[in-house]
Amino acid sequence: MASHECRLRVRYAETDQMGIVYHANYLIWMEIGRVELVRSLGLSYKRMEEAEGLYLSVIEANCRYLFPARYDQEIAVATEIVKANSRSVEFAYRIAACEPARVLATGYTRHIWLNREMRPCRIPEHYASLIAASAGRKEPETARDE
Amino acid sequence: MASHECRLRVRYAETDQMGIVYHANYLIWMEIGRVELVRSLGLSYKRMEEAEGLYLSVIEANCRYLFPARYDQEIAVATEIVKANSRSVEFAYRIAACEPARVLATGYTRHIWLNREMRPCRIPEHYASLIAASAGRKEPETARDE
Amino acid sequence: MASHECRLRVRYAETDQMGIVYHANYLIWMEIGRVELVRSLGLSYKRMEEAEGLYLSVIEANCRYLFPARYDQEIAVATEIVKANSRSVEFAYRIAACEPARVLATGYTRHIWLNREMRPCRIPEHYASLIAASAGRKEPETARDE
Amino acid sequence: MASHECRLRVRYAETDQMGIVYHANYLIWMEIGRVELVRSLGLSYKRMEEAEGLYLSVIEANCRYLFPARYDQEIAVATEIVKANSRSVEFAYRIAACEPARVLATGYTRHIWLNREMRPCRIPEHYASLIAASAGRKEPETARDE
Repeated sequence: MASHECRLRVRYAETDQMGIVYHANYLIWMEIGRVELVRSLGLSYKRMEEAEGLYLSVIEANCRYLFPARYDQEIAVATEIVKANSRSVEFAYRIAACEPARVLATGYTRHIWLNREMRPCRIPEHYASLIAASAGRKEPETARDE
Repeated sequence: MASHECRLRVRYAETDQMGIVYHANYLIWMEIGRVELVRSLGLSYKRMEEAEGLYLSVIEANCRYLFPARYDQEIAVATEIVKANSRSVEFAYRIAACEPARVLATGYTRHIWLNREMRPCRIPEHYASLIAASAGRKEPETARDE
Repeated sequence: MASHECRLRVRYAETDQMGIVYHANYLIWMEIGRVELVRSLGLSYKRMEEAEGLYLSVIEANCRYLFPARYDQEIAVATEIVKANSRSVEFAYRIAACEPARVLATGYTRHIWLNREMRPCRIPEHYASLIAASAGRKEPETARDE
Repeated sequence: MASHECRLRVRYAETDQMGIVYHANYLIWMEIGRVELVRSLGLSYKRMEEAEGLYLSVIEANCRYLFPARYDQEIAVATEIVKANSRSVEFAYRIAACEPARVLATGYTRHIWLNREMRPCRIPEHYASLIAASAGRKEPETARDE
């Protein structure tokens, strides 16, 4: 189960009056993580949307907050695909400060693929294979996609 | 030149670590102001987009910040149409705290109408009249739309 | 277990290019829900922060997305306290469209109270009682606060 | 008048249902631009806030939108200091797409320095000199700081 890491720097706009990053922003960082993971597989999420009308819709998001992120910190988002088939994908995330290295949050998101009519669909086999391979194992297609 | 007022309460998510509302959020409040102004004219911006493919695209936004808005304050956004014709609209805003009453910011936004192809267009005459009437005067159609 | 409902209207800024509300915004709506629930108990979260240095820190957030929220929809956020003691609170949420009425998402957030030094603390007994009463039952103080 | 450039990639969260970047986000990008410009001068805005209680408060923001930014585009933010003295700074920005290269927006922000009590103040001479030097000329201290 390969993990992909990307880095970002905390923006002032992401802080709140508690002096730390507002908690909803971690979901935005997770999205950056999964887009970059998909890019690292040789896919472009942008092109999948535009050219093929495939949308990776979030059906569940979860985040556990361990330590607060602070303004101007460099953040590493490690993302991996937990499971995937042609209709759904589940990602797991570990969000960490870089210096000193410390895990700040962990989380997961579960997704289904939608077509242009915003209805659940299967993605082409070559996409599904690439994505599932990253998860280290391909979910059997008969698996129930929640 | 009639002004329309709408109210909102400052969200925690809108604050930053300076303990005040992050300045970009005022542009979001201005948008709430102009949507509600348009609604008060008997129009629905949502329907204009969906049914008629008309988009009110921002070409300039300006905000002057006088006093900071703070978490949980009730805010009044007074919006008026400064000028309008069938191709463009300019709105002016006064953003104030309600208790005690104090102007926090003033600003303006300038817009052009775009069609579904994202190209400048003219809106139907009945829309233009309604909107221009709110401005107290109709811009001559020969006016240059910047 | 009393539930408190508050309403809001979807902002344009909250949509994304899928034409629906961006998923991280539901966490912001949950926050509006819990702030208004706390207000309905006769407390002011703002005052607790400012006057008493008590911060309701998020340690976990979860959201399940059933149907997308769309621009300009009126949204009802029903919030209830699932459990509470002097050191922690757990809220549950049901986010619904108003017309036609339809549940769009459900979720929960878990919190601990922090003091000005951002360390876990107990809140004064009168606060704890008020909040726990809303949950219909008071958690025994010996319960482990995760 | 030296210009400093930094790069960022458009986030999905930054788009709206028009399929382009929501206009308020450009103000956030401008902030990234000025923080990185300040960093390139050998200063840390974070440290100025934390260690010295100096806050660079926005008193005016302006943006002219020429072409829309789109999801996943690489964006270059060129920032320069237009004028500066010990009490105020004005930045100008040019926001461009990288491929193909095209200016998307231009803007400016005007700021005053505040102390921990959120009152206008002068910054220490060595800061003022560094910042003003970047502007190519130092504003006379007798100039009126708006």
